[in-house]
Amino acid sequence: MNKAIIRLKNSLNRGTQSLFRCDFHTSDAINQHLEEKVILTKDRYPNMKRGKFAELQGSHIQHFINLLGPTRVLTDPNDVEPYNIDWIKVVRGYSGIVLKPKTTQEVSEILKFCNSERLAVCTQGGNTGLVGGSVPVFDEVILSMSLMNKVIDINPLSGTLICEAGCVLENLDSALEEHNLMMPLDLGAKGSCHIGGNISTNAGGLRLIRYGSLHGSVLGVEAVLANGDVMDVLNVLKKDNTGYHLRHLFIGSEGTLGVVTKASIHCPPRPKALNLAFLGTDSFKNVLNILQLAKSCLSEILSSCEMIDDPSISAVIRNLGVNSPIGQFPFYVLIETSGSHTAHDEEKLNAFLEKAMAESYVLDGTVTNEPSRMQVLWQLRERIAEALLKDGPVYKYDVSLPVEHFYGIVPLLQEKLRGTSAEIVTGYGHIGDGNVHLNITSKFYDQDLVHDVIEPFVFKWVADHNGSISAEHGIGFKKTEFLHYSKKPGAIALMKQMKTLMDPNGILNPYKVLPED
Amino acid sequence: MNKAIIRLKNSLNRGTQSLFRCDFHTSDAINQHLEEKVILTKDRYPNMKRGKFAELQGSHIQHFINLLGPTRVLTDPNDVEPYNIDWIKVVRGYSGIVLKPKTTQEVSEILKFCNSERLAVCTQGGNTGLVGGSVPVFDEVILSMSLMNKVIDINPLSGTLICEAGCVLENLDSALEEHNLMMPLDLGAKGSCHIGGNISTNAGGLRLIRYGSLHGSVLGVEAVLANGDVMDVLNVLKKDNTGYHLRHLFIGSEGTLGVVTKASIHCPPRPKALNLAFLGTDSFKNVLNILQLAKSCLSEILSSCEMIDDPSISAVIRNLGVNSPIGQFPFYVLIETSGSHTAHDEEKLNAFLEKAMAESYVLDGTVTNEPSRMQVLWQLRERIAEALLKDGPVYKYDVSLPVEHFYGIVPLLQEKLRGTSAEIVTGYGHIGDGNVHLNITSKFYDQDLVHDVIEPFVFKWVADHNGSISAEHGIGFKKTEFLHYSKKPGAIALMKQMKTLMDPNGILNPYKVLPED
Repeated sequence: MNKAIIRLKNSLNRGTQSLFRCDFHTSDAINQHLEEKVILTKDRYPNMKRGKFAELQGSHIQHFINLLGPTRVLTDPNDVEPYNIDWIKVVRGYSGIVLKPKTTQEVSEILKFCNSERLAVCTQGGNTGLVGGSVPVFDEVILSMSLMNKVIDINPLSGTLICEAGCVLENLDSALEEHNLMMPLDLGAKGSCHIGGNISTNAGGLRLIRYGSLHGSVLGVEAVLANGDVMDVLNVLKKDNTGYHLRHLFIGSEGTLGVVTKASIHCPPRPKALNLAFLGTDSFKNVLNILQLAKSCLSEILSSCEMIDDPSISAVIRNLGVNSPIGQFPFYVLIETSGSHTAHDEEKLNAFLEKAMAESYVLDGTVTNEPSRMQVLWQLRERIAEALLKDGPVYKYDVSLPVEHFYGIVPLLQEKLRGTSAEIVTGYGHIGDGNVHLNITSKFYDQDLVHDVIEPFVFKWVADHNGSISAEHGIGFKKTEFLHYSKKPGAIALMKQMKTLMDPNGILNPYKVLPED
Repeated sequence: MNKAIIRLKNSLNRGTQSLFRCDFHTSDAINQHLEEKVILTKDRYPNMKRGKFAELQGSHIQHFINLLGPTRVLTDPNDVEPYNIDWIKVVRGYSGIVLKPKTTQEVSEILKFCNSERLAVCTQGGNTGLVGGSVPVFDEVILSMSLMNKVIDINPLSGTLICEAGCVLENLDSALEEHNLMMPLDLGAKGSCHIGGNISTNAGGLRLIRYGSLHGSVLGVEAVLANGDVMDVLNVLKKDNTGYHLRHLFIGSEGTLGVVTKASIHCPPRPKALNLAFLGTDSFKNVLNILQLAKSCLSEILSSCEMIDDPSISAVIRNLGVNSPIGQFPFYVLIETSGSHTAHDEEKLNAFLEKAMAESYVLDGTVTNEPSRMQVLWQLRERIAEALLKDGPVYKYDVSLPVEHFYGIVPLLQEKLRGTSAEIVTGYGHIGDGNVHLNITSKFYDQDLVHDVIEPFVFKWVADHNGSISAEHGIGFKKTEFLHYSKKPGAIALMKQMKTLMDPNGILNPYKVLPED
């Protein structure tokens, strides 16, 4: 047995087993280099035209106060302002009102009224989106779901949860913990994001490789349509083939076809054992070898497989003072296992590591099942975005690619941007799901470079390699003009027809998802 | 250790590990007690009115021959007849033509022509459906997908398959085997059913508890719309949030919104170890205890959990001469594990069995990992429908219920039907997914009993307990009038709007899924 394997094996310490809860920033952290005073979206995008919606009148406000009472209708600009700005401070609307319904009936009354009055509506969950989908573009009425935050039912036997849309993801996971269940998704923003927003954006996250997408996990939804009708397909059944599967209309349509008010979700058993391995390797080819071997050896216990390139880790080490437990390598892979039996999982993980080192796929690494050490290792992945921002503005792309092309764009872009204001090009992300986060740091924010060089190149390259220009962040406001790179004209035409069918006045989250004609 | 545990442990023989391939009839076997000469649907359901579609003319036939050549246009009544009758011989159309396209372009040309000529179309896959969805009701043009049966790509690294819609499920699974992958669904009809039909009906099957539904597994589809437009959303990406998730429109809509021509599917690693336990218990309460314990102890390796009641097993023993390896009990549970490590899986299974017996949840049982013995044990579950049919006509219902109500309807129905022509009421099925197959044998086919007593009671009871009147079989032709038991008026109204949007002339699989106005 060589030294490295011994080191790996010794690092398999026997700490207390408990579920690792990560509290780091999302991979797409606050873009603090952008202006303190955020430019209004209408000024940043001067070609955008406000739709022919009504403007908010005193009579509208009075109607909402009659409906919700005065405390759940915010109109003081200081109160409203935080709801107008997205959390990465790139887009900013100028809505004059925030409504905070507590019941589906109230949401229904609000939408019915807005539809008849032609008032545009922007529904907001935890406001953790990254594509400007959750704040108004102009003066849309803001519908905050934050007070619809009740857990309605947890059924431990069938493993199902029913809850309101405004529940925070992390709170739901905590509520499930005592029943030995877990939420089937996990992402950096879990401390703020709402399950309604997760569903509306089809959130992916760190463990999709194991627990699948929300299209599989969400068993039913209740949603309010643009005209105020309540669409109740909130069943908790795992098999139900009675008519069209309408819930999927609301998963990933970003609030443009209806407002999700409740959801029922299939929740897997909470794992009793967790392990995390942090591995260094010398080439992207070996990253793929590690992935393939992990899928084969770890199979049913593999719960995360993340790739990080050296420029990403270096930024974390350099800018945040986090130490890497192993030497410097061109690439790193984080492997997480979740299972029901500690000894079995460790044995599988050891067998995987021995093979990976014997084949020289892995050159060095460390393994732990101790929660605090896992937390430290996760920082090397979770804090990359935060670290890169210390170097200057960051242009961020969230793309999916067939896994063999996962890293191909990074060296090409490095070459292409040589001699420009761009500095570091990095790639990291969910290699198990083919989802790469492409980040480009820059000396200063260079709008021309972004629009004329980076975006045409990135989106075209992704499209040419059958990728998706938005893996998990969605289209929102900021990517509507690029939708055509990932969807054919026929698909976009059908989307528009569905929008017209379900929201003929276009009041639900206008300017989002679909490009203007 | 008590005797039963020793017996269980000893039965854990160490046979060759290989994947068990079941070749039995579906749980809903051929209803051979129905008439030899199947009554035409239009005569069996005299209130059904043919839609205002064109009738097939010689000029239409000539057009199709020009398009496909003479050998792929069947018009000889002897050739066409098998396509007019469903395999359980309950419904029978009188179409005069079968078209067998080989390419998406041909499907497109056919639908474009049918749409402009107002010819109704019934798309047919393997014709293994149980609700009359896959054969014409009247004289619809039959579009057989059987020649679109090519595997287009298998990517072992990402675990994805791209294939044409007419591929037989079992053939796909065989093609994946050499790449150590498997299809994420398995059902009795796998030797005949097409993946296009599986997708169009959102097929469930035996291992949904482990691998989830097709809404999670299907990554993309290519479908032809009613007007002949090709909707290409055939990506192979696990994460793609670019606009509405259109593929879900075609999953479970039973060919009424479009014809699926190709699909891309996420395929899990093929397990290296399989075990099967057949357990006897004394009460439904203990069936639930076994389920809960299995989910906790077997967690990530649990791949099937089936419940069978004594009348079901007794019919198999009595009518088919199959022996049960254990004594007689009110209830039986089949537990299958699939994993990547033989010794680990057996250890988990043993721990589960020891606990289950120590708590007296399980009174007796047998366990095997030897393929031929597993095959014998599966017969006790898979051949129930066939066995019941030996006793006379069988009224069959496929319902989902919250798991605690899974068996509640059986004793109620036994009581209700006492003194009628009905004989045995049995319940068995996928308890892990809350999907019970309710079967009622009868001395003779008693239409009045079915329509006046059984169906109103079953469907109302299921609706009152928040169940689904069709768990996996779909609505097809036979259940449209009962859709309202599982879907609210608002949902049915939206389904009808979507149908009108996507198929304004109503040519795609008319009379199916949606009730008449």
